[in-house]
Amino acid sequence: MQTSNTDKKVPADQRPKLKRSIIDCDIHHATGMNAIKPYLPRAYQELVKQYGPALPGGMHFNGGVGGRMADAYPEGGGSAGSDLELMKKQHLDRYNVEYGILTGEGYAMHATPNYDYAAAICRAINEYTIEHWLSRESRLRGSVFISKQEPKLASQEIDRVGGRPDMVQVIVSSGASLPYGNRFYDPIYEACVRHNLPFTIHVGLEGEGINSPHTGAGYVTHYIEQRCARPAVMAAHLASFIFDGVFERFPALKVVLQEAGVLWLAPFLWKLDQEWKGLRVQTPWVRKKPSEYFREHIRVTTQPFEETPNREIFDHLLESIYAKETLMFCSDYPHWDYDSPSQALPKLDHELWDSIYYQNAAKLYGLPQRQTEEMK
Amino acid sequence: MQTSNTDKKVPADQRPKLKRSIIDCDIHHATGMNAIKPYLPRAYQELVKQYGPALPGGMHFNGGVGGRMADAYPEGGGSAGSDLELMKKQHLDRYNVEYGILTGEGYAMHATPNYDYAAAICRAINEYTIEHWLSRESRLRGSVFISKQEPKLASQEIDRVGGRPDMVQVIVSSGASLPYGNRFYDPIYEACVRHNLPFTIHVGLEGEGINSPHTGAGYVTHYIEQRCARPAVMAAHLASFIFDGVFERFPALKVVLQEAGVLWLAPFLWKLDQEWKGLRVQTPWVRKKPSEYFREHIRVTTQPFEETPNREIFDHLLESIYAKETLMFCSDYPHWDYDSPSQALPKLDHELWDSIYYQNAAKLYGLPQRQTEEMK
Repeated sequence: MQTSNTDKKVPADQRPKLKRSIIDCDIHHATGMNAIKPYLPRAYQELVKQYGPALPGGMHFNGGVGGRMADAYPEGGGSAGSDLELMKKQHLDRYNVEYGILTGEGYAMHATPNYDYAAAICRAINEYTIEHWLSRESRLRGSVFISKQEPKLASQEIDRVGGRPDMVQVIVSSGASLPYGNRFYDPIYEACVRHNLPFTIHVGLEGEGINSPHTGAGYVTHYIEQRCARPAVMAAHLASFIFDGVFERFPALKVVLQEAGVLWLAPFLWKLDQEWKGLRVQTPWVRKKPSEYFREHIRVTTQPFEETPNREIFDHLLESIYAKETLMFCSDYPHWDYDSPSQALPKLDHELWDSIYYQNAAKLYGLPQRQTEEMK
Repeated sequence: MQTSNTDKKVPADQRPKLKRSIIDCDIHHATGMNAIKPYLPRAYQELVKQYGPALPGGMHFNGGVGGRMADAYPEGGGSAGSDLELMKKQHLDRYNVEYGILTGEGYAMHATPNYDYAAAICRAINEYTIEHWLSRESRLRGSVFISKQEPKLASQEIDRVGGRPDMVQVIVSSGASLPYGNRFYDPIYEACVRHNLPFTIHVGLEGEGINSPHTGAGYVTHYIEQRCARPAVMAAHLASFIFDGVFERFPALKVVLQEAGVLWLAPFLWKLDQEWKGLRVQTPWVRKKPSEYFREHIRVTTQPFEETPNREIFDHLLESIYAKETLMFCSDYPHWDYDSPSQALPKLDHELWDSIYYQNAAKLYGLPQRQTEEMK
């Protein structure tokens, strides 16, 4: 063994040759996805072309075209959701969106063990959002990205930009290594309350990096399983918030559950209340029925919404989750399973429609009443 | 450092004394629960007295008295569920139980990395069950315990005792390191089909030993959270069975979901069907709607049953999960949250009652029709 590899100082093709032949037992030839793609079965070739390699660091294939609507890619190139003018044309103008909350994409920094790096990425996202989006379009509002794996750094970022009137919430991925009711996260909620910002949990990054496996039964195999496991991850966070007493420690805190579905909450709330009746002696700080905390502190966005077998069940379950106070419309633009505002939900009576499509969000985010004319 | 510690060969109080005084930097005084209990806050003293230390190896406090009904402990001593005569008096005779399926308790062997040891314990449970219970009471049937962490050993145990007419299912904990649809487990399903035995997943051991954390968001803090997370673990197994194609590989296999609740299944099935519509190109072996696989292959036991806000929702959701074909009564005797057969469910029409309280189980387990007289 050499103490220093002097060959390295010489360009590779000028290094001295060996006279006697040798055997080398570890030579890395390139076997990346680009090299091997033609050798994969055709079905996987197509999937990889659409969604990338789907290996750790984005482990599952996605839906649509690259996870986005096929027609949301700008004609001049660039990724879906990168062009403000196209966003206006396809969504903000067309559907009369008075205010739109930007939630970004690619939450991989929420799964890295390097919390300083995560914090740097979050800060960069926040700066970019302010400069390239919020300053150019008055209908848009921003979400403060934070390194939730290091709550002190996270709270500093909330203090840094959370006071801006165009920043209306704090956002994290649902993928986590600890449920969000754990006291570990308290510095984040102190900062949220300080700036009157809801804490929003958006699905994503389950089972990646330092986050826990997708389910309580371990890692799942397929993207469809990951999607079907998302209500459960959100449910775990919700139970954690309630039973670890976060809303007793932070009575002003509001929490938004985003993109994990909606109607599963009804039987889940029944279960929370039922278990609480039998076991509340073990969590005496939980002073109210879990469903009361839910009603007061939790808001839920609509997309993706479960299809029910009939309208009656839909109405019953909407009532069970106090939808008139808790439900807020969202489209998920420009993702492949985007809900158009005119087709996301069945026909609702005017008051409920107005609550879900405007008032609940206006109240939560402190947004003004409608100023635009009604479209013909 | 000595090469051998010769002092160890001499009894401790006869070892030679040291002349010069020393400092020892690692002396383990006893700090087990028995020693420190008086120093704990009173509330924890009470919990530990009721449920044991609630540290890894049984991490959470439980409910009732030691997790059991207070009056299920035999007068002469012994644990709840240890005395056949008391079980007859309190449950089998009182509630006219024609057949009762024994499911044992304490599934810790399902969470140890030592699969040979796990297999030995399972075999011991099976032998004990046959000798002490099944041979003494003709109304009882047994469940084959298996070391699911080593599917080959597990399948050998199924082959060893699964052919007995008094063994009617294979049983495992829901706590797992891999969802049960993973091909890793195929040798178990081959053996189940060979002996025409349902594969039953009973809640328990989530987050313990080698099993995954309780939720997709990591470990939970309180027992009540563990209980509220159980539907999700079962949901993960169910999605895995369907989307990994187990029922295509084993068309005769039936699976029983036990003690994870019931009504959450309705919105979950809607979600499975909905996602399948959008993503089935990625799992082409899933030829039917997920809810159709559910209806054909899955059976669900009743306890603990979610309380609904009104009867209408209850009826709707029962229909959504095809309860008439899929739901089977169970009591969970003698656990603290036991459901008495006369109070487990609201009043049902005769046919539905008969399906849930008798026929669905009789069909699944191959049990004869009623032979007892109706009680007055």
